[in-house]
Amino acid sequence: MANNITIVELAAALGLSKSTVSRAFRDSEDINPKTREKILQKASELGFSPNLYASNLRGNKSHTIAIIIPEFGNKFFSQAIKGIEWVARNNGYHVLIYVTDHSAEKEAEIIRTLMNGRVDGVIMSGSGEGNNHEYLTLLQNHKVPLVFFDRYYEDVDTACITGNDFESSYQATNHLITNGARRIAYLAVNKDVSIGKIRMEGYKKALKEANIPINDQFILDTSNVVDVNYADIKKLIEDHRPDAIFASVERLAMSTIRVAKELQLDIPRDLKLICFSCLDIADMLQPSLSVVKQPAYEMGIAATKKLFDILCGRKPEGVREIVFLNSELIFQKSSSKS
Amino acid sequence: MANNITIVELAAALGLSKSTVSRAFRDSEDINPKTREKILQKASELGFSPNLYASNLRGNKSHTIAIIIPEFGNKFFSQAIKGIEWVARNNGYHVLIYVTDHSAEKEAEIIRTLMNGRVDGVIMSGSGEGNNHEYLTLLQNHKVPLVFFDRYYEDVDTACITGNDFESSYQATNHLITNGARRIAYLAVNKDVSIGKIRMEGYKKALKEANIPINDQFILDTSNVVDVNYADIKKLIEDHRPDAIFASVERLAMSTIRVAKELQLDIPRDLKLICFSCLDIADMLQPSLSVVKQPAYEMGIAATKKLFDILCGRKPEGVREIVFLNSELIFQKSSSKS
Repeated sequence: MANNITIVELAAALGLSKSTVSRAFRDSEDINPKTREKILQKASELGFSPNLYASNLRGNKSHTIAIIIPEFGNKFFSQAIKGIEWVARNNGYHVLIYVTDHSAEKEAEIIRTLMNGRVDGVIMSGSGEGNNHEYLTLLQNHKVPLVFFDRYYEDVDTACITGNDFESSYQATNHLITNGARRIAYLAVNKDVSIGKIRMEGYKKALKEANIPINDQFILDTSNVVDVNYADIKKLIEDHRPDAIFASVERLAMSTIRVAKELQLDIPRDLKLICFSCLDIADMLQPSLSVVKQPAYEMGIAATKKLFDILCGRKPEGVREIVFLNSELIFQKSSSKS
Repeated sequence: MANNITIVELAAALGLSKSTVSRAFRDSEDINPKTREKILQKASELGFSPNLYASNLRGNKSHTIAIIIPEFGNKFFSQAIKGIEWVARNNGYHVLIYVTDHSAEKEAEIIRTLMNGRVDGVIMSGSGEGNNHEYLTLLQNHKVPLVFFDRYYEDVDTACITGNDFESSYQATNHLITNGARRIAYLAVNKDVSIGKIRMEGYKKALKEANIPINDQFILDTSNVVDVNYADIKKLIEDHRPDAIFASVERLAMSTIRVAKELQLDIPRDLKLICFSCLDIADMLQPSLSVVKQPAYEMGIAATKKLFDILCGRKPEGVREIVFLNSELIFQKSSSKS
């Protein structure tokens, strides 16, 4: 792809120096994450295309990578795909997209179609169901490197770009406790997948430190079906009257807001709420929504660069390496002291 | 891909008859659109996979199609992609995804990479800039059929699945007039692309019928850059004091809400607002947002089925045919009489 604008023009549009802008496209740690995000966003808007890998990637065959995601339901995934597609396209790569609908069986079938040279590498957020991940070993045997983003499997040795979920879940739960909550429910996306478990561990740590007993009745393992989640959240609230809810993904918070409305519970007076979410309009909701905001777009970019590093031979394949990108906690009305 | 559940189980989960459910997967008009949407949604949630084309598609080579979209910024596109990927996967097809960042140049370059047998067909929402669409003729010369969805080019003879935008824009503007607005501004996404123009025509027709003069100062052609749009919308409001805004895409309405907040204008008292949007949380915004809601997921499904019809030889290639899917108008607080 041709560049529409040069790095000098991009720097001018941002009012930044050329060297600051170019740092944003390298793996440099020597740049403020907020500045990096601003630069990447503007680069995408203006169509700036840094070609970082193309000359080193020529040896690969299909010039295609696959993205595999469990769902399209959260803003997180569309932002991450945007980042992946952007890096890939700017390096002459094509991107296949697959959705597993949270099914481990579908995930395995998709993976099997990718071993015959269709792709040079795979970027995946795990669907989480099932514990047999042999099909991923097969992928590695076929020299198709895999990079996880967000949701990974602990038994698979490969690189992963994810959020600092333990720490941010701990902080989010702590924040609810500080604001007076004691009966705090946790809505898990899936206890079998890394993020479902790790986010719950952060929640539990905060409760323990505050000497609040961990009550299994307050931990809800949810499904992929909106109606079922709605009914389960309603039952949880009616039966156990939590005074706060920590939702591990955005769509569960949305269901919670609808349930609260039906039960005529005021957020935050009767029920405080905080959730993982990449919504850029969380401040416009009624009430404004407190969020743990993951750098989804950056996570997509980082995962693709990691995969290209492996494809270029700059990084080894099949080595476990977890990179944590920090989320931002934004406290708004929904979790306030009311 | 294997089916996880049968059509009988899907019908049972929905409390509907098997024949009603199977109608939703055919091109049958003999089903309520709301029911169809409910069935398709549930099918996706439960992982039901209707295999409609696979045996007829065997003659094709790559078993891959490409989606080309201008941006990821609106919920519309993630919903449409979800529909496209779903139909494709259930028929053994792979899906490549490309984002043009609204650049006609990038669109042409992407198209050029797709002529060498990489894909059997293309589903595209046009980027809109530039008027030379010869590269699309080349695509047809290479026997790669093209189906547009949402944003199409009027000079290209091919099938298109789009919304009834003229009618729904007319109704949305009429609604603002009925609720007392007279100084109604229109925020165009891009006057060069079908939806930018057609939505504006619906707006103009409503003004004419109400004997409200059409004022070019009230028509803002926007860009792809959030900051620029924010500044332009702010200037429009400060200079010309509209009493209502009709935004042709979701992100422009979000910028409008932020500008109104900065200028301390109350929505809807000082400024009424309605926009095209597929947000399923429009009712949760403060104020709840009036929307023209396109059937994005269904549009993605319909476009993919149309492409497969062409690939199967059931429909001719290179014939202009525009299919309109009706949007739903949802009037909430943001456009009310206040």
